[in-house]
Amino acid sequence: MNEYKKSVQERLDNADLLVTKSITENNKLTLEIEQKSQELIELRNRYDELDDKYKKLKQMNIQDKEDIEVVKDFFSHMVQVRIQTGSPYEDEQGLWFNISQGNDSVSIDYKLGFVKGQTKESTEIIYVPLLKELNLDELKILQDKLPTYMFETLSFPLDALNQFYTKMSKCLNK
Amino acid sequence: MNEYKKSVQERLDNADLLVTKSITENNKLTLEIEQKSQELIELRNRYDELDDKYKKLKQMNIQDKEDIEVVKDFFSHMVQVRIQTGSPYEDEQGLWFNISQGNDSVSIDYKLGFVKGQTKESTEIIYVPLLKELNLDELKILQDKLPTYMFETLSFPLDALNQFYTKMSKCLNK
Repeated sequence: MNEYKKSVQERLDNADLLVTKSITENNKLTLEIEQKSQELIELRNRYDELDDKYKKLKQMNIQDKEDIEVVKDFFSHMVQVRIQTGSPYEDEQGLWFNISQGNDSVSIDYKLGFVKGQTKESTEIIYVPLLKELNLDELKILQDKLPTYMFETLSFPLDALNQFYTKMSKCLNK
Repeated sequence: MNEYKKSVQERLDNADLLVTKSITENNKLTLEIEQKSQELIELRNRYDELDDKYKKLKQMNIQDKEDIEVVKDFFSHMVQVRIQTGSPYEDEQGLWFNISQGNDSVSIDYKLGFVKGQTKESTEIIYVPLLKELNLDELKILQDKLPTYMFETLSFPLDALNQFYTKMSKCLNK
């Protein structure tokens, strides 16, 4: 009988121990779930905040891209100079603008480069007419309007850019 | 003895049941932890992706803002017209540009509005000289250069904007 009681007691003790261990483990797991749930809530909040910022920036981006087009359109109307899509762009020489200047009946495409001059602060302008896309008729019209030197690459100081523009504008509108 | 055995068996059964329930509960909790861990990993990945996109967009944004300044600088050199910071802007009348036109020795600030004309497609330009900030000397210099009508608000069709610019430019540079 004592043997039996002892064995029963052992089995009962073991069962108790298992239950206790299991409950302790349960509590640990429940705590871990709470922590992860908390982490998830915080991360979701951070995600939503970042998503808001992203959307606002995207809106600003659309606005900026519109503004730049509006500014380009403005000058196209006001001074008959259009900066082409994809420019300005930079290369090792300097900053380049692809330009189309002119009116409904005659226009010329050219590149203007802003490159470093001989002194540190000075800027030279490089003018490169883009004539390859022209057909013979278009070239003929331009030849009637522009002096010969405007069919060649030119370089002049930044200060003379306004003079260059005025000359080009007068020729194209004469 | 049977009573005792029965009671022992009941206690053992109860303990087994508790252990089984506890283990089942443990498995459920462990599964939940795995799910939450998985959710956390996915959400972290999504967060990192969004953060990358945000940083790239921010970079683009800086680039766009630089581009718009570069374009404004370009025209300021080329045609002596500067679009002021904070413009273009829209109001119920139309789209407005705050302009400063001129050279080192003389310049004039004015607003140009692009407003809807009488027909649906037509655009009228409204010119508003901004003279309040000028001192007497500056006003005197401008009066020597510009015809009287350029000190008043004017309105003309969009087609005449280039002509307006050319006139203003000639007067300021004479």
